[in-house]
Amino acid sequence: MKLYETKTAPNPRRVRMFLAEKSLLDKVECIEVDLQKGENLTPEFVAKNPMKKVPVLELDDGTTIAETMAICRYFEVNYPDTPRLLGESALEQALIEQWLRWLDYYYFVPCGMGFQHTSGFFKDRMTPVPEWGASCIEDTKKFMQFLDQHLAGKEYICCDKLTAADLTAFAVTAFARVIKLRVDDSLPNLLAWYERIQARPSAQV
Amino acid sequence: MKLYETKTAPNPRRVRMFLAEKSLLDKVECIEVDLQKGENLTPEFVAKNPMKKVPVLELDDGTTIAETMAICRYFEVNYPDTPRLLGESALEQALIEQWLRWLDYYYFVPCGMGFQHTSGFFKDRMTPVPEWGASCIEDTKKFMQFLDQHLAGKEYICCDKLTAADLTAFAVTAFARVIKLRVDDSLPNLLAWYERIQARPSAQV
Ligand SMILES: N[C@@H](CCC(=O)N[C@@H](CS)C(=O)NCC(=O)O)C(=O)O
Ligand SMILES: N[C@@H](CCC(=O)N[C@@H](CS)C(=O)NCC(=O)O)C(=O)O
Repeated sequence: MKLYETKTAPNPRRVRMFLAEKSLLDKVECIEVDLQKGENLTPEFVAKNPMKKVPVLELDDGTTIAETMAICRYFEVNYPDTPRLLGESALEQALIEQWLRWLDYYYFVPCGMGFQHTSGFFKDRMTPVPEWGASCIEDTKKFMQFLDQHLAGKEYICCDKLTAADLTAFAVTAFARVIKLRVDDSLPNLLAWYERIQARPSAQV
Repeated sequence: MKLYETKTAPNPRRVRMFLAEKSLLDKVECIEVDLQKGENLTPEFVAKNPMKKVPVLELDDGTTIAETMAICRYFEVNYPDTPRLLGESALEQALIEQWLRWLDYYYFVPCGMGFQHTSGFFKDRMTPVPEWGASCIEDTKKFMQFLDQHLAGKEYICCDKLTAADLTAFAVTAFARVIKLRVDDSLPNLLAWYERIQARPSAQV
């Protein structure tokens, strides 16, 4: 299987961490896509993912699966004997999905938009609206505070164990430096959790 | 179980359709939340969902599950003998997840933002950025064209059968009238698919 991805980008990082936690990284051949050069905008790439984003998983028969969580789910279902990061019981699966969605909509998207709309990083392919970007950065900051409160007395985000929610929250928190948000002493629970996840081998891949 | 929801809002509609397709609507007591009056902003509601959104499912022991797809997954896993709308094999589950994510990020979110940022419907709780709203409406329009092309020769969005992806796409397409987008003859495949889903009993609940 081929994984089209970008080493420095937060979504592919979520997939790599997910695979590393399951010891499945060796199942994929990683193919670097240079986003700034627009390698994700070529007709060949668009045929793999019409949304023009990494990551994309390509199976040996040529079938492609786009979207971080779709790729993670593929491995979760296909390798049931590896650590379950999307939950076991119905309730666990639902609570992890809830957190993944909260993190995506109210943390990751604002962080990414805040970056794109204030930096102009992708201005060759979208029109930045700086006022919108600034409002997104505020929302990202507020979510960090929410996470800090939530993590008081907790080791992981939900279900009392490491789940895909921790991996997403970690990848976004690390990426937030591009909008100059860094976790420090003012968010002690988030900081302790962040350091805990960062110490895992999967954070180095 | 209690389902906190709003009859006219598209996310709760996705849950109702999902339950109706599984003949599970009678498992929940629906509690109407008036969004425009801000009933989702009260301390009681925020305790159920800190993101202040409907739908929210409340189990009999008081546990709450927010997020449309988390609620759907709870029922999918807990009632395995009902029609599977999130897929069976790993590949099916992944492809449905891919489509659900595409539809959420590149259709639903732009549609919702286009509405909120050009109408000021929720201006008591957020600051509309009209320029951003206009750009979101353009993106919604483009996604409709993409869907129309994708549906050529297909009865359903993916996996050759009805899945949660059809329910999401239907709820968004119906809701898009609030930004004055209506499916017509200019998008013949999307129109035929839309009428097919609309004819299902689940579209009336
Ligand atoms: N919803 C997608 C988002 C993917 C995404 O936005 N990827 C970024 C890199 S982290 C990308 O490819 N950006 C390139 C571009 O926007 O042109 C997922 O979860 O995989
Ligand atoms: N990601 C959430 C979105 C929920 C959402 O945005 N719900 C809308 C109604 S469709 C809402 O509650 N809006 C009230 C508000 O924004 O104040 C989900 O999938 O459930």
